[in-house]
Amino acid sequence: MFEFDIQATSGRARKATFHTPRGSVTTPMFMPVGTQGTVKGISPQELLDVGSQMILGNTYHLMLRPGEELVRQHGGLPGFTAYPGPFLTDSGGFQVMSLGHMRTIKEEGVTFRNHLDGSLVYLTPERSIQVQEALGADVIMAFDECPPHPASQEYVKNSLERTIRWLDRCLQVKTREDQALFAIVQGGVYEHLRLQSLEATLPFNTPGFAIGGLAVGESKEEMYPMVDFTARHLPDNKPRYLMGVGHPEDLVAAIGLGVDMFDCVYPTRTGRFGYALTDQGRINLNKASMRTDMRPVDETCDCYCCKNYTRAYLAHLMRAEEMLGPRMLSLHNLRYLHRLVDKARVAIETDTYVEWASEWGKVYFGGTLPAWFEQALRASSDE
Amino acid sequence: MFEFDIQATSGRARKATFHTPRGSVTTPMFMPVGTQGTVKGISPQELLDVGSQMILGNTYHLMLRPGEELVRQHGGLPGFTAYPGPFLTDSGGFQVMSLGHMRTIKEEGVTFRNHLDGSLVYLTPERSIQVQEALGADVIMAFDECPPHPASQEYVKNSLERTIRWLDRCLQVKTREDQALFAIVQGGVYEHLRLQSLEATLPFNTPGFAIGGLAVGESKEEMYPMVDFTARHLPDNKPRYLMGVGHPEDLVAAIGLGVDMFDCVYPTRTGRFGYALTDQGRINLNKASMRTDMRPVDETCDCYCCKNYTRAYLAHLMRAEEMLGPRMLSLHNLRYLHRLVDKARVAIETDTYVEWASEWGKVYFGGTLPAWFEQALRASSDE
Repeated sequence: MFEFDIQATSGRARKATFHTPRGSVTTPMFMPVGTQGTVKGISPQELLDVGSQMILGNTYHLMLRPGEELVRQHGGLPGFTAYPGPFLTDSGGFQVMSLGHMRTIKEEGVTFRNHLDGSLVYLTPERSIQVQEALGADVIMAFDECPPHPASQEYVKNSLERTIRWLDRCLQVKTREDQALFAIVQGGVYEHLRLQSLEATLPFNTPGFAIGGLAVGESKEEMYPMVDFTARHLPDNKPRYLMGVGHPEDLVAAIGLGVDMFDCVYPTRTGRFGYALTDQGRINLNKASMRTDMRPVDETCDCYCCKNYTRAYLAHLMRAEEMLGPRMLSLHNLRYLHRLVDKARVAIETDTYVEWASEWGKVYFGGTLPAWFEQALRASSDE
Repeated sequence: MFEFDIQATSGRARKATFHTPRGSVTTPMFMPVGTQGTVKGISPQELLDVGSQMILGNTYHLMLRPGEELVRQHGGLPGFTAYPGPFLTDSGGFQVMSLGHMRTIKEEGVTFRNHLDGSLVYLTPERSIQVQEALGADVIMAFDECPPHPASQEYVKNSLERTIRWLDRCLQVKTREDQALFAIVQGGVYEHLRLQSLEATLPFNTPGFAIGGLAVGESKEEMYPMVDFTARHLPDNKPRYLMGVGHPEDLVAAIGLGVDMFDCVYPTRTGRFGYALTDQGRINLNKASMRTDMRPVDETCDCYCCKNYTRAYLAHLMRAEEMLGPRMLSLHNLRYLHRLVDKARVAIETDTYVEWASEWGKVYFGGTLPAWFEQALRASSDE
């Protein structure tokens, strides 16, 4: 259980199988986000159809509504949501910071007013694990603080040290053997603090490690050296999860740096707003020119949306505020990211990852690779 | 083409096959409404999965947005919407009356300000047919006036006489052989005006006839004698379509009176608002008690929603304003109505329609049949 078998590498990129109680998944992989017990607008059957493997659920949202006990009564998230495969739940830490009001962070835990009704909620490492055990995901996350950006070195240092003490408390109270708890490396954009976090976290020897505290407002130039540095120090034989990332270019860059798992609301959120992801960049179905465009969103895509609809039809749905528009664009965007990591896996298997990523980037960025992307690809070859 | 083969009757109820260019359909049937080129929230594959046969499109909405020319460029509604089966379009007449502002009805046609941008639009019988030929449905409707309720005898008489002259103009300009134009019988709630409309309309010998001007605000006690009277005078060998109807109890009553085709936004609209149709009546997933109800919406239903979800989960989706809630309830409600007419067809085949309808009604109405329903069933046996 929770073994991580690497089948191929190309530079620092790896293709592997991660075994979980609800099935084995192939990495690199992108995990759709089902914040409130549903990937917005998409059915479980459609998730399977587009190639989703593991779905993310949000502890913060689900503990507030409908409450974790109801989910437990359904046999956890698979019974509640009818998605039959593996799940991962976050710890609630990130949402407490981003959505809670008047939060107070103390050694014991975090007190905050919830965003739904303003009532006072108390979240601790122990409570987070209790909720995550009720939600029943295959992978659960340690309760951490994700500091905002920018944050001072002193703030980040204190925060990461507390996060390590919280990790210890999480592991103390964890009871379920069928859930893998991943620790989270913090340290902001400070290399020496990343190292401090790594040195204190790795000895816990959890079945996987997450890179946290990134994609919270810092630039790509600040973010990628941290991904590079952190991933380099994580053990080879455990999955590495870059939390809350990302956009297509992020997946391609971070896979090159040895990251295995990703999650982001981006494909479904941008789809709801009428945007579609393609290898040539994001296209905006709200533009007037789309209203007469008889092409599919993406000629190369095999999703239900691309096989059935013209851009003109989708533009009509968006303009008419028809639910099928956001639904179909969300579906396509998920399929796009899943196909993108499929292609990344093929490039790893043929040991051509950097070449593939570079070619992909040239099309995506319209000719010239941004410096941060080029540097990530260089670091990929630099074992 | 457009033949109507009756396979079985039970009292005045009939089971038949109606042949259209895009396939044969079995009646009685309920047609989901795809107002703006999509049945709200439901994909074409799902429509096929729940047993939809023919989809209704709205001429008024589609001519305004995206405009019929774009639909024509897609090969009509099947190409535009990706639903591969038969379609029916209304004439635009009903929406002009209900949605248009400052409308002026003259012999030539109707002028109105459209509800989207207030611009002036002119709709005539000729223009309605021109648009419907571009939309390319298998069944198209004559341009008529559907008078409001209540309306004076004088108003209804003038209106129905004009509607007959408009029918003649529609047939004059119609060019496509692969579209069946149905005439619409009007006459409000006045039996002698229904008769006048019938006597003037039937000689046009169109391939089907609609019963119009009902379910516009009159009571069931006023409506059903009109359905009874009108259906009784329509030819046996042509499909009869009761426009804009209905609720489950309407389908059961009107099928008994010999109606073959129905359409209504009810299943999808009430689904979007969190209501689910069952044989025991409509259930409200917004109620607090639903939040812990571990049963499916309908134990007897075979739809994706009922096979996968508890009421508690659906109540959570509605409360969290998640798109999947309206989507799943719309899907179930369509399946419910399709299964209901399936059962009606079986009862017709076994010549037990009135018995079946009476038993169904006792459960649905909770013991006692309303007088209007009982009277419709009595009239069903009265050939």
